[in-house]
Amino acid sequence: MESYVVGVDIGGTGTKFGIVDKDGNVLFSSEMSTKKHLQVNTFIDELHVHLSVMIEKVGGFGRIKGIGIGAPNGNIYSGTIEYAPNLPWKGIIPFAKMVQDKFKVPVKLTNDANAAAVGEMMYGAAKGMKDFIMITLGTGVGSGIVANGQLIYGHDGFAGELGHTVIIPNGRKHSGTDQLGSLESYTSATGVAETAKELLSQSDRPSLLRTTNIDEITSKDVYEAAIKGDEVAKEVFEFTGKILGIALANFVMFSNPESIILFGGLTRAGDLILKPTRESMESNLIEIFQNKVKILISHLKESDAAILGASALMWE
Amino acid sequence: MESYVVGVDIGGTGTKFGIVDKDGNVLFSSEMSTKKHLQVNTFIDELHVHLSVMIEKVGGFGRIKGIGIGAPNGNIYSGTIEYAPNLPWKGIIPFAKMVQDKFKVPVKLTNDANAAAVGEMMYGAAKGMKDFIMITLGTGVGSGIVANGQLIYGHDGFAGELGHTVIIPNGRKHSGTDQLGSLESYTSATGVAETAKELLSQSDRPSLLRTTNIDEITSKDVYEAAIKGDEVAKEVFEFTGKILGIALANFVMFSNPESIILFGGLTRAGDLILKPTRESMESNLIEIFQNKVKILISHLKESDAAILGASALMWE
Repeated sequence: MESYVVGVDIGGTGTKFGIVDKDGNVLFSSEMSTKKHLQVNTFIDELHVHLSVMIEKVGGFGRIKGIGIGAPNGNIYSGTIEYAPNLPWKGIIPFAKMVQDKFKVPVKLTNDANAAAVGEMMYGAAKGMKDFIMITLGTGVGSGIVANGQLIYGHDGFAGELGHTVIIPNGRKHSGTDQLGSLESYTSATGVAETAKELLSQSDRPSLLRTTNIDEITSKDVYEAAIKGDEVAKEVFEFTGKILGIALANFVMFSNPESIILFGGLTRAGDLILKPTRESMESNLIEIFQNKVKILISHLKESDAAILGASALMWE
Repeated sequence: MESYVVGVDIGGTGTKFGIVDKDGNVLFSSEMSTKKHLQVNTFIDELHVHLSVMIEKVGGFGRIKGIGIGAPNGNIYSGTIEYAPNLPWKGIIPFAKMVQDKFKVPVKLTNDANAAAVGEMMYGAAKGMKDFIMITLGTGVGSGIVANGQLIYGHDGFAGELGHTVIIPNGRKHSGTDQLGSLESYTSATGVAETAKELLSQSDRPSLLRTTNIDEITSKDVYEAAIKGDEVAKEVFEFTGKILGIALANFVMFSNPESIILFGGLTRAGDLILKPTRESMESNLIEIFQNKVKILISHLKESDAAILGASALMWE
């Protein structure tokens, strides 16, 4: 009798989940809101309701080998989510244990970006690569690092928090961490919107973005204005790419990856962001690293990649 | 009959070498100038002269299992030294092959800081650690990264060039790489002297350093003035520590090491540099990493550590 695993990818805004077979096919998948659940218990209750329906469709809980979960600041060693700045639940949450108690099946949990990196290595753009870095550009900026063919977990299980590395000392304040000048404060969806607001308020330059209330501008609005040729919106992506490129250069000089795989909403902007990112990365690299590292966009279907990556934890 | 290995550590200024036994005892050691040799051939010739004398003392070349070499930008995969900004030899040098042809014994070569990290893991402060970063603060700033108990070499063998990561975008120009704002441009011995020159020329503040010709100030002069209580000299170390601390925070958020081991001339300044470094590191870390990472000073005898690390390549 075939067995399946459940993959769950928890993001700051929404959570994706699905049933996966051994060949990496996502049989059923769906999503729900993360941020409306101020309590972790009600979140797990709602997840249980949705997943129970799906699990019945594949033959019931007896067929489920386990649940793999990717979450911001998820710790593979302890199964906890600790002080995640982009989640509504504060402090240290024994998340894997809570899910295991509710579902009565084995649960493994790791950093969401680590899960995505495993997904890319097993099914995606990093197939066959032994050294790569996966970076998710979404509500937050997450990362998973593979070196010598292994995921780097670090001493406490928190390796790969590249979104929180400081790129502009004394730069923009991150509303979740209070850090100054971190990568995430510039290159997350929120960071892109923030840059647009700054550029608009610093001048009277005409822009399509001025038709939206300045406090309600999103990264999607910036993207839509940029593809229509809006100069301010294009400058937002150039600035974002420039900062991302400095960060990527630093990461390359750290672990010397074969490629960097980008993933998440912001990558939809394509060359608007990739071109300045590549240029900035190359100009900040020393000679031995120049023109070697491929910047790739994940080609897994976005909702699938996250679920696949999380589920892969249970096949390991 | 006991066999020995030779360890060679090539630095921008000088090269250290010695004969090491299986237990990590350095039986004989010495050093010579690197920078006076504008040609790599004359450098290898001089090294051969010195080492031949030592090798005779332990019973001749028949006793030598091989030569392990640590060099800036040394590549373990190809045995080459590539575009090393702090060495007199430019381009790609097939160094391991040249030494092998001259000495007629097996040769292995890697990045000098990787060699030092192996030395620390086998004989020093990192004994028993599976996740740590070794940083040498000398003429240049080098690094070796160990994760999951393994040295990270990267796809092309150049992982761990942390001295060239950009900490202050558009900051100080590095005379070797032309990069702006790299860690090395601030926290190498040269960087410390440069900071002193900047501080002295920006004001008329009294300082013991003003007794030295401003263009001839070295990091040693700054250290000697600082321990006498000179305010400008102390400020130089505070500034250096602040920048080093930002960099260390970024490295911690990359690979989540158990400790960071500092090594090299600048560490002799002790708390003058360590205190601001620790404070700056902690204030740039997100919560999950705070108050966890130990900053340690290598306790291996400096000349021995480098030779031991390089020699360890041949025992592997």
